[in-house]
Amino acid sequence: MAHALVPEAGEAVKIESIQSAYHRLPLEGMGDAGHGAIDSMELITVRLRAGGLEGHGYTYTIGRGGRGVHALIEHDLAPLLTGRDATDIQALWDAMWQRLLYVGRGGAASFAIAALDIALWDLRGLREKKPLYALLGANAREIPAYGSGVDLPKSLDDLLKQTEGFLARGLPGVKVKIGKSDAREDEERVRAVRRLIGDKVDLMLDANMAWSAEQALERGRRLEQFNLRWYEEPTIPEDVPGHAHLARELEVPIALGESLHSLHEFRRYVDERAVEVLQIDPVTNGGISVALHALQMANAAGLDASSHYCDELAAHLLCVATRRVYLEKHAFALDRYLEEPQRVLNGRARPTEAPGTGMRFAERALAPYRADR
Amino acid sequence: MAHALVPEAGEAVKIESIQSAYHRLPLEGMGDAGHGAIDSMELITVRLRAGGLEGHGYTYTIGRGGRGVHALIEHDLAPLLTGRDATDIQALWDAMWQRLLYVGRGGAASFAIAALDIALWDLRGLREKKPLYALLGANAREIPAYGSGVDLPKSLDDLLKQTEGFLARGLPGVKVKIGKSDAREDEERVRAVRRLIGDKVDLMLDANMAWSAEQALERGRRLEQFNLRWYEEPTIPEDVPGHAHLARELEVPIALGESLHSLHEFRRYVDERAVEVLQIDPVTNGGISVALHALQMANAAGLDASSHYCDELAAHLLCVATRRVYLEKHAFALDRYLEEPQRVLNGRARPTEAPGTGMRFAERALAPYRADR
Repeated sequence: MAHALVPEAGEAVKIESIQSAYHRLPLEGMGDAGHGAIDSMELITVRLRAGGLEGHGYTYTIGRGGRGVHALIEHDLAPLLTGRDATDIQALWDAMWQRLLYVGRGGAASFAIAALDIALWDLRGLREKKPLYALLGANAREIPAYGSGVDLPKSLDDLLKQTEGFLARGLPGVKVKIGKSDAREDEERVRAVRRLIGDKVDLMLDANMAWSAEQALERGRRLEQFNLRWYEEPTIPEDVPGHAHLARELEVPIALGESLHSLHEFRRYVDERAVEVLQIDPVTNGGISVALHALQMANAAGLDASSHYCDELAAHLLCVATRRVYLEKHAFALDRYLEEPQRVLNGRARPTEAPGTGMRFAERALAPYRADR
Repeated sequence: MAHALVPEAGEAVKIESIQSAYHRLPLEGMGDAGHGAIDSMELITVRLRAGGLEGHGYTYTIGRGGRGVHALIEHDLAPLLTGRDATDIQALWDAMWQRLLYVGRGGAASFAIAALDIALWDLRGLREKKPLYALLGANAREIPAYGSGVDLPKSLDDLLKQTEGFLARGLPGVKVKIGKSDAREDEERVRAVRRLIGDKVDLMLDANMAWSAEQALERGRRLEQFNLRWYEEPTIPEDVPGHAHLARELEVPIALGESLHSLHEFRRYVDERAVEVLQIDPVTNGGISVALHALQMANAAGLDASSHYCDELAAHLLCVATRRVYLEKHAFALDRYLEEPQRVLNGRARPTEAPGTGMRFAERALAPYRADR
């Protein structure tokens, strides 16, 4: 039998090479209560060659720590995976977790693992000629998408202009950052946005861990009057009992997930009923593999689901969710750096039908921002 | 008034420069059940200049992830601290934690923060002309030190030879790695060591997270017959309820701490009574600042304390502990790379009387292992 150029599904496929590149992409006038001013994002792309195909992956930061993440990929994970069989993603994920266990258990290690995990899922899609949603066992469907700013430093005028832009795009919901030191200022901004969008558009608030659980309870009670879809990251991720208390005391559902860096962290939140809208981010969570299992946990617990950033991957992943879903159209859009930006029509996103993730970075657009050489 | 060359205690002292260097130090024939074979350690040294003085710090890994930790120091933390006042260590620690929050909350970020935190404490000692133990509010005292191998791959003969070496040095206790797939093999090794050391020498076992909590319970019940001082890291750090169950069910005390990367993690273990011997590691925990607070938690909860690695810093830190203490004389000794290795006399360690940490790396010994240029 002649040697096939592209191996059949089911055969072992040896990883031949892994290349990564570090970029710093400028952002303007953004920030939130937990992370302060955000003037750039770091984007690290990964290309993983195996069996004549090339899986693409990426990871990102909000402008800090990306060199460290890149070094973990270059010096630890790429050498670990090269030469291994690409088809057993779970085994490779576990090998990466174990390799970085001593300095890992989350944090930067999860961001590094994510880039390779995403490339492995992409490669699997290319090999099996299936889009990601199908690999995950779901059918494609339309996911409602809300507009999301990173807008705490914006003036009220600029906040309202941004909101008008979301409405003009036909998005059925908008999210506003809160966490001003003066509670009345937050209240004024939220009231103005609610007045602008009317009663039929969903409104979410995001505190980015600004407060103690007790402060978050007081703030939440003041803000519930605005008929909120959810109240996001009211306090630090380590305070699981605090979140559980907020979930019991407030009517507005508690949403979080972007700051959880392992399945262990998700499990504790679900077990202790400390999250009501489970949000996945396939980068910060440690890969598509982790985000998928987190969504399955949400399904089993009867929780609503949503996404943080990574709009393109989220459109595939959220097809797995069985309760209410919402995709975040994030302010750090990668649209201008992608060959085919993720489209939103009539306020709804659909996953791409291309094999794999469907994400291909436009090299010409990215090249000017490469910063590792 | 003439400008003093060295500022007085209490004055603000601006951080002028931070230099770091990455080294790979070879190790031979070491390994454990959780991390596999360990053929090198990575050592990253830091020098922080402020007010005419130079504080020295370091961080380490067990051979993986160190390039990432180094990049976090070089690209994120050193630029953040340069120009700030060195005297408010707590404020600087918090600024570092917040800076790396998005990719942090533990993991590699804690290892990076530790190097700078150690350098800041060292600098404070130089400024105030006090050894670290005095800065921590304690008196110097002798701390019993036990011999500790990273010896799971060693043959039984080599394990016994290593143990004889510990006895010859007059150490009052020895620790043995367990986690062989065959429970009888662990049992034979532990029995042979207990027979060799007799009844008057302390014996500790370390499983390095080899098992599930249920397996760890079965293994622990088989091994308790050997009159153990403690049973270390029986399962993964994420399984806090599992550790609490083991602490209740087994007579042998449960020991851990080296894998905890924040004060939040320590607090949960103490609150849930899931640790009985609290072990600090001023590198992996995120700095002297974190290890100090962890020891104060142990004191408040009435727990015994011990150290993992970092023998030189541990001799200062353990002076703070109010219950029984034990210092680990670790197999990855830095002795040959230090100007004045930490001494153990009659099985006891004393903190140095030099100002600061007293740790100075011997540049001539380290230089051949520098690997970042």
